[in-house]
Amino acid sequence: MMYAGRDTLEKLCADIFTALGLTPGEAEDSARILVTADARGIQSHGVARIRRYAGGIRQGSIRCGVEPVVLHETPLSFVLDAGGGMGLSLARRSMDRVIAIAEKNGFGVCGIRNSNHFGIAGFYAEMAARKDMIGIAMTNTAALGVPTHARKAMFGTNPIAFAAPASGGKLFSLDMATTAVTRGKIEVYQREGKKLPPFWAVDAEGRVPDDAARLLDGMLYQRGGGLLPLGGEGEMYGGHKGYGLAVMVDILTALCSGGIFGESVRDSEASSARVCHFFMAMRIDLFRPPDDFRRDMDRMLGELSSLESADGSGRVWYAGQKEQDAEERSAREGVPLTEEVWETLKKTAEELGVPFPPPLPAC
Amino acid sequence: MMYAGRDTLEKLCADIFTALGLTPGEAEDSARILVTADARGIQSHGVARIRRYAGGIRQGSIRCGVEPVVLHETPLSFVLDAGGGMGLSLARRSMDRVIAIAEKNGFGVCGIRNSNHFGIAGFYAEMAARKDMIGIAMTNTAALGVPTHARKAMFGTNPIAFAAPASGGKLFSLDMATTAVTRGKIEVYQREGKKLPPFWAVDAEGRVPDDAARLLDGMLYQRGGGLLPLGGEGEMYGGHKGYGLAVMVDILTALCSGGIFGESVRDSEASSARVCHFFMAMRIDLFRPPDDFRRDMDRMLGELSSLESADGSGRVWYAGQKEQDAEERSAREGVPLTEEVWETLKKTAEELGVPFPPPLPAC
Repeated sequence: MMYAGRDTLEKLCADIFTALGLTPGEAEDSARILVTADARGIQSHGVARIRRYAGGIRQGSIRCGVEPVVLHETPLSFVLDAGGGMGLSLARRSMDRVIAIAEKNGFGVCGIRNSNHFGIAGFYAEMAARKDMIGIAMTNTAALGVPTHARKAMFGTNPIAFAAPASGGKLFSLDMATTAVTRGKIEVYQREGKKLPPFWAVDAEGRVPDDAARLLDGMLYQRGGGLLPLGGEGEMYGGHKGYGLAVMVDILTALCSGGIFGESVRDSEASSARVCHFFMAMRIDLFRPPDDFRRDMDRMLGELSSLESADGSGRVWYAGQKEQDAEERSAREGVPLTEEVWETLKKTAEELGVPFPPPLPAC
Repeated sequence: MMYAGRDTLEKLCADIFTALGLTPGEAEDSARILVTADARGIQSHGVARIRRYAGGIRQGSIRCGVEPVVLHETPLSFVLDAGGGMGLSLARRSMDRVIAIAEKNGFGVCGIRNSNHFGIAGFYAEMAARKDMIGIAMTNTAALGVPTHARKAMFGTNPIAFAAPASGGKLFSLDMATTAVTRGKIEVYQREGKKLPPFWAVDAEGRVPDDAARLLDGMLYQRGGGLLPLGGEGEMYGGHKGYGLAVMVDILTALCSGGIFGESVRDSEASSARVCHFFMAMRIDLFRPPDDFRRDMDRMLGELSSLESADGSGRVWYAGQKEQDAEERSAREGVPLTEEVWETLKKTAEELGVPFPPPLPAC
């Protein structure tokens, strides 16, 4: 593992994105959000993805410098067609605008269609939570998830992010796929040659697969099968609830913005996923003074994180706590990157003629 | 199974509630919501509960004719202290007011504290969906659910209801506990003498219990253990996501209204559960013309419900579809009630001197 200074890493990624053709603003936003993911220990959504974004930009499925078209506006809301622009930056700017609407009117919301992968959903929900608001962010994603009792993928991993503030910068921050696991988890099992556990996926014949490579292949070539919703197979353990949540995300993101949903959402480097986003901010003083709210949040989060663990050895966490701990550690020790990701960054920088900095020592 | 005419059944239940001391308005609301649950096949939340409500009213934990106190108001929101009043009726009236706010301003929201059991959450979310809005309803409930890696109940079954309209009165209507199952399901296994499956619950020692009676006893006397969140035990199958959703419900219901949350929420006939609710309505034309939205909803729900099932024999449903089918069947054939529930109604009516009607034949 290498440890890079956060500023250095952000600068490097922004330089790479600028060299690829993004505007300086788009490049800075994108770099910041990817590095934030790594700083929080969410490597699946961090700078390791830079080659995928680069591929999208080179092939034109992610378009640089696109100004979104405003399709609809009210005093509380707006709807955008993103025109296949850079999802990370567009999402950051849109949440800024949602927050500004909520600052003025108490509540703000937006729907965005025809966008691209926006990274960690929690980043945007937390932007609102840091302004004494409740923040929500969702996106639909390429169809990999199979409805309860079916065997065909009809929705994405469709994450829900929800954030609310406690005191001293602490947050409750939930950021969860509505499928039992993400494709990334299946890929890890493939790399490690491990058999898949039950409740994660279903194959084209409606059976539980244990071969990760075969499942990934089936999903890639749309032969049927895919990821199970949160709660697993059938209704016995609540799989129909995860399925319902995934469809709820499709409704709020795609049906509200007039974008594509369900099996039409297909991801590849060659074509834009054209995913849809939903952002919402709700001022806490719609309900009560934020100080009172935060005091109760402190008590709640304190109670949860001081619970005795079932096996006496572990810990009980609240949503977002591990990531906040990791982010503090990254500020002290540098952002952790595998050597493989570091080499990817180096190679990408060299291809583009971007000066490659040496890794910073752990500070 | 008996089949009762819906109007007759509602009249009987309203008469019982009036005889117990509720105002005519409270009694009618309460009767309508309970009978709706039975008409939809959700017997766990139907008229079978009338003796529990009667017990609460008689012991004073549910107070009759209480006017809620307005704690806070803005152009988009209000917060109420329900004063231990009848949750069913208060919830119906509050959602009416949230909808009126949204009709005027595009968005309405409310938090309610110190209330009582409000029946099926979906009833309130659907009220908004029938007005070309997206509706959300949540409530916290007595602490029965155990956080991931813990062994002590710290949140309720905390349901989330979300509804959005398609054409012709059809709705997508999700109404789900955020625990893997509800206590009612454990009680069914106890009655039938069946062993509990894994992923539903954890006992006071942090182990998976198979004895339903022992688990219920432990939950009742707060000896530790309880229901697992949606996604089951640990993080392998996403249990931390269900846990996160349950806490999200506590935040929106109790933290927003200044009510009680977590392990403080305790249910018994002798004392009010003092639960908290959250209602939200968001006009669809914040985003786009409702006709366009409904057309896309028709397509989505049509695609989902016409999917081939995995085993070739079953069906694929969308959330709320089974309940809507059942409600149509009840309109034709009468509302199905077990003989046991019918006897309970008869006994309750006789105790209160309420005229008991004969059962209607299936029509």
